[in-house]
Amino acid sequence: MKELKNLMGFRESIRVVDATLRDGGLVNEFRFSDEFVRALYQTNLRAGVDYMEVGYKADRDIFDVEQYGKWKFCDDEEVRKVLDPRDDRLKLAVMADVGRCNFRRDIRPKDESPFDLIRVATYAHQIPGAVEMVEDAKEKGYEVTCNLMAISAAQESDVRVALEMLCRTPVDTLYIVDSFGALFPEQIARIAELYMEFAEKYGKKIGIHAHNNLQLAFANTIEAIGDGVDWADATYAGMGRGAGNCPMENLLGFLRNPKYEFYPALQFCSSQMLKLKEDGVKWGYDWQYLATGLQNEHPRSAIAFTKADRRDYLEFYRELVVHD
Amino acid sequence: MKELKNLMGFRESIRVVDATLRDGGLVNEFRFSDEFVRALYQTNLRAGVDYMEVGYKADRDIFDVEQYGKWKFCDDEEVRKVLDPRDDRLKLAVMADVGRCNFRRDIRPKDESPFDLIRVATYAHQIPGAVEMVEDAKEKGYEVTCNLMAISAAQESDVRVALEMLCRTPVDTLYIVDSFGALFPEQIARIAELYMEFAEKYGKKIGIHAHNNLQLAFANTIEAIGDGVDWADATYAGMGRGAGNCPMENLLGFLRNPKYEFYPALQFCSSQMLKLKEDGVKWGYDWQYLATGLQNEHPRSAIAFTKADRRDYLEFYRELVVHD
Repeated sequence: MKELKNLMGFRESIRVVDATLRDGGLVNEFRFSDEFVRALYQTNLRAGVDYMEVGYKADRDIFDVEQYGKWKFCDDEEVRKVLDPRDDRLKLAVMADVGRCNFRRDIRPKDESPFDLIRVATYAHQIPGAVEMVEDAKEKGYEVTCNLMAISAAQESDVRVALEMLCRTPVDTLYIVDSFGALFPEQIARIAELYMEFAEKYGKKIGIHAHNNLQLAFANTIEAIGDGVDWADATYAGMGRGAGNCPMENLLGFLRNPKYEFYPALQFCSSQMLKLKEDGVKWGYDWQYLATGLQNEHPRSAIAFTKADRRDYLEFYRELVVHD
Repeated sequence: MKELKNLMGFRESIRVVDATLRDGGLVNEFRFSDEFVRALYQTNLRAGVDYMEVGYKADRDIFDVEQYGKWKFCDDEEVRKVLDPRDDRLKLAVMADVGRCNFRRDIRPKDESPFDLIRVATYAHQIPGAVEMVEDAKEKGYEVTCNLMAISAAQESDVRVALEMLCRTPVDTLYIVDSFGALFPEQIARIAELYMEFAEKYGKKIGIHAHNNLQLAFANTIEAIGDGVDWADATYAGMGRGAGNCPMENLLGFLRNPKYEFYPALQFCSSQMLKLKEDGVKWGYDWQYLATGLQNEHPRSAIAFTKADRRDYLEFYRELVVHD
């Protein structure tokens, strides 16, 4: 059981990462207005958020630039146009997927870019690619995190090998990523214990990125924090792929470090996030995501169900579990 | 940390209570159609639910019968008209509030009533009234539980005294009730430890009734189960006062005892509960409930905000925290 003192006091080492533009961008093809992004930046500053992830460094040779907003590609110049001048208290992050980013070309040395942190995202079978990207980003002067995705569907022995390989790189923080939103807090506790074992041995930090398929994104995030995980991802109104993420406003309401402020988060939700919802952008917990979460499956079928405006949840569930 | 074996295996002693009509009734003035109630009963049977709470035994001298559906009063005859014949595998429960129920008149001996279980609900300052009702119900032949409400706002020393007094009655099960939806899982763990201490000493069972103000109703329920709490309340689609309760479909998806079935729950949600939502019955997590939950306040102001169709969340929060 976690201790009362952990709940009443706080750890200085906690870091909050706003992933609204990045994970939320998966919902609306990264079509955020400049005004929205600037308001988000100011909100994060006032709320004491430590990092703002503004999107992906996606490879233009793979993804059609016409199909997405600019936060899918996050050109250094485009980001500067919207967010300069910046404030040192809020660092900027960008995500780069193994195999979907031309990192040698598109990630410039840190002193030439607006970014402080490169977040490498990898599946367990792509670790050598992730190692290469971590080393490249470190050489270019960045802080580097690595998100090991979809671990609820990976073999624990594979995860151990992956952690061992990643810990031998200069990566700063390794993330527990519940891509399918399939994990219960008890499992998060055990996984955190495993990651912390490596973190302590190699001097790394651990992070948590949760999804809300089971209505447990917030619960799993604070479970992980109680287990010693220092980095926590959240998004305003929980905006993110499918069932969405841990809501920033809940996380800020939970954290006891007085640098974190709930009020600006609620202000942003009640103005900007409410408007997105009213404009028809759809994300968040619903029964189709519960179904894929309980099945420990990628939510793509549930996302398609949502996009098609279907309401026949039972038929969806049958499609999911009835295989020939 | 709770053990893997608890998650993969199951405890035979777990009991699931469907509180849809009772806590959900607080949302729609207990106006459920007979067809809805019968479908709910059949769903609970198929899903392996152990108890179905059908409403309140409210005092007609206090509450206007014109203002509510019949599940507010749960006359034995009215309940029989809708639910006979019954099946022994699914027991019927009814709630009686201290000070709002004429229990001597309205609760008949068990062999004359359709009910198996009387659920006495009390605040910490009403314990002598609760003791009287527990003893009366036991004498009449019922199983009896006692819900000690709003404990997040009670002094721990008062809770100890209340538990001591209630444990000396013949009550079977004592409930942890987070009426304000203000508790985090770490707090649930500590409260469960306190209740379990009394339970072990006096041979009682412990139950959990959670609210979803912080998006933690499901998380707090499974936290409590992991801590040794055997009785868990849930409602379909989480229907209940304000932010609602632990969703039955999530709980059934979590429990590993093969007697509990997820499929009938989803079927009921996608037919009956979806219809209620589409008809405009409003409940469930939203920012106004997060605000009262974080403030550890009764959600009545948030419920009024919801009923008034207000969307000015920030102004609501100001009203909540700015006092002269």
